[in-house]
Amino acid sequence: MIARTEIVHSTEIEFWFEFASNYSYLSVMRIEAEAKRHGVRIVWRPFLLGPIFRALGMENSPFVLQKEKGAYVWQDMMRQCRKYGLGWVQPTTFPRIGVLPLRIALLGADQPWIGAFCRRVMELNFVQDKDINLPNHMTPILEELGLPAADVLAKAQADSTKASLRGQTEEARTKGIFGAPTFFVGPEMFWGNDRLDDALVYASSQ
Amino acid sequence: MIARTEIVHSTEIEFWFEFASNYSYLSVMRIEAEAKRHGVRIVWRPFLLGPIFRALGMENSPFVLQKEKGAYVWQDMMRQCRKYGLGWVQPTTFPRIGVLPLRIALLGADQPWIGAFCRRVMELNFVQDKDINLPNHMTPILEELGLPAADVLAKAQADSTKASLRGQTEEARTKGIFGAPTFFVGPEMFWGNDRLDDALVYASSQ
Repeated sequence: MIARTEIVHSTEIEFWFEFASNYSYLSVMRIEAEAKRHGVRIVWRPFLLGPIFRALGMENSPFVLQKEKGAYVWQDMMRQCRKYGLGWVQPTTFPRIGVLPLRIALLGADQPWIGAFCRRVMELNFVQDKDINLPNHMTPILEELGLPAADVLAKAQADSTKASLRGQTEEARTKGIFGAPTFFVGPEMFWGNDRLDDALVYASSQ
Repeated sequence: MIARTEIVHSTEIEFWFEFASNYSYLSVMRIEAEAKRHGVRIVWRPFLLGPIFRALGMENSPFVLQKEKGAYVWQDMMRQCRKYGLGWVQPTTFPRIGVLPLRIALLGADQPWIGAFCRRVMELNFVQDKDINLPNHMTPILEELGLPAADVLAKAQADSTKASLRGQTEEARTKGIFGAPTFFVGPEMFWGNDRLDDALVYASSQ
């Protein structure tokens, strides 16, 4: 039985993501299909990027602070989305605050609807160019997933959930996370959507 | 004849690189074989990353300035080199000044030895962990390539070559380059070794 437990643990990938993050969008859209293909279980780990950036001395996304990199990123996103067959509209607000959906994702991290929920929120931000922090923008998404929207929204805004998200963000910081998406396979860290495939190959080889 | 000229132009990739840059190391080692496979001609564009970083308000490499990212980068390099089958020793000095080999690369950019020269310099830095800015470290490399080492070194240190490298670096800045390696296919910019394959696919489709 010990051997079995070890196998289960080693084929897990921790997926640290933020709804404001455009490269997290690519990974959120891809990860369930890719992880399934590699036989790897996903541990969904929503966190807040803002406090991480501030702890690193940045008052905003590096894509906003560094003009040249920012200009490049939107070209890159257009090409990456075309490559992966994903929709893409450059958000008129960036980065978009997504505390509410992050709290919902935290509540649903172990639930079967987590992947679908995250994809809808990401499409709201990066395809429909809509605010993702409004309860009335979350309600139709939750209802489509067959969930009691009012109840989920109430739980998401409870003090305990707020504290959990702050705790998870603090954990991201102590793990050395400096951007999103970030993947962990055991102690091995992989940064960026460009490393999702490497991380899954590594996880499935453990 | 006009059609032929257009075809030649559209299957070119501009390769902007720096010998100090660890991700440029990956691309320098890979680009000749990959470009050949895609039928794309390489335009070698050595430049100085230091003045670019300073123009962006950074006094050093972001891998030195950002402790968390720096720690990650060396793990990532180890894994990337394993993936590509390349040697890897974390340099004891980073970033290593490589003005002299950049000047030699500028002189040799159109010569058949450019690829081999750049690979030797990169291996000196990232496999042998040796200073790359010493004339007596360049001499054996140049001699192995069958070149008149003393003559090449003298030309590399001529004022006109120094001015050319400064000019090429200024061109990098005006093109919006903010890191290395960077690739251009016509006006389309691709940043990072992770985009070399996309850039070559794009070039070969033009």
